Amino acid sequence: MQGKFITLEGGEGGGKSTNLKYIEQLLLKEGFSVVMTREPGGTKLAENIRQLLLDKAQEEISQQAELLMMFAARAQHIKHVIQPALAQGSWVLCDRFTDSSYAYQGGGRGMDHSAIAWLENFAQSQLRPDLTLLLDVPVEIGMGRAKARGQLDRFESEKMEFFNKVRCCFLELAEKQPKRIKVVDGTQELAQVQAQISQLMQDFIHG
Amino acid sequence: MQGKFITLEGGEGGGKSTNLKYIEQLLLKEGFSVVMTREPGGTKLAENIRQLLLDKAQEEISQQAELLMMFAARAQHIKHVIQPALAQGSWVLCDRFTDSSYAYQGGGRGMDHSAIAWLENFAQSQLRPDLTLLLDVPVEIGMGRAKARGQLDRFESEKMEFFNKVRCCFLELAEKQPKRIKVVDGTQELAQVQAQISQLMQDFIHG
Repeated sequence: MQGKFITLEGGEGGGKSTNLKYIEQLLLKEGFSVVMTREPGGTKLAENIRQLLLDKAQEEISQQAELLMMFAARAQHIKHVIQPALAQGSWVLCDRFTDSSYAYQGGGRGMDHSAIAWLENFAQSQLRPDLTLLLDVPVEIGMGRAKARGQLDRFESEKMEFFNKVRCCFLELAEKQPKRIKVVDGTQELAQVQAQISQLMQDFIHG
Repeated sequence: MQGKFITLEGGEGGGKSTNLKYIEQLLLKEGFSVVMTREPGGTKLAENIRQLLLDKAQEEISQQAELLMMFAARAQHIKHVIQPALAQGSWVLCDRFTDSSYAYQGGGRGMDHSAIAWLENFAQSQLRPDLTLLLDVPVEIGMGRAKARGQLDRFESEKMEFFNKVRCCFLELAEKQPKRIKVVDGTQELAQVQAQISQLMQDFIHG
């Protein structure tokens, strides 16, 4: 049986890393085989593209080039990691996916959503996440946490206004696709966040 | 006054490098400022993408990823090199451009031309070459020359059938756009090739 494709989305400092591990543990306890991966990245070539994208010392990257590099890495990731894992019945748990392209390149940079939608079809064919958890925190809180973590990458170095647009776009996506995208309130205590995630996962698996 | 954008196209071993330098000299003699560049490449980031694309040791690159990386490098190249040079009145002389995407990814790999056309509009907006010289040689001759030159890259290591499709596609493009694309018979002696190029350039500049 084909596995399920689950993505975790949200702005900086929303607690994605901690909660990815938590979701992996939940799935393993349910007896699923789990492949954890991330975007941009997930294969050697895609990780090389990731490095080019995140490097602050890099020349200024044009908006078109950035979006095309994101989808190039994604096409590679899908073909070599995500599709084969799903076909073997594993559940794939991915840190960021195409919702981030809508939020960062679409919402943040103001690129046309229809261009992103064309690239989504081109790079993914029919593949879409079965479930997406959106870890939502106000930008001030998230960026405070990201800064406390140390050195900021090229995306994390953007201005507050950019991150506000990113957050708004994520929330709009969730509003438009409430069946797939579930919003988790990342401002709660970790135990509460994980209780909410656990409930959503139970509903998804057994609901 | 805006400069002109000239591209040189063709398969492996057609004599592009030698003739690029020849065309540059012709343009300099006419008093133009000339920017010589190449694809994939032309900026630091685009050259990094080129390395990923040409590396034979790389994991197998999906067709979609390859095409998206080509256009990512192109978008960057246009924004940082080609457009600024043309705007300053320089003539830009480029070793390969989008016709190669149609020929290699479209003709060679069989990717849909309409997808390439969408990406062309997305990455280039209105920018198209003013003149393209297609150095045409039969595949057997071109590949013989490329092999004599030494180590083959990831594209040069493809099979004969692939290169036959690439050549056919280049010739079809020239047939469809005879005003922009001029075919140069690369099997002639170098002096004859350059006499033909010289005539075409004179017609373009003064015609």
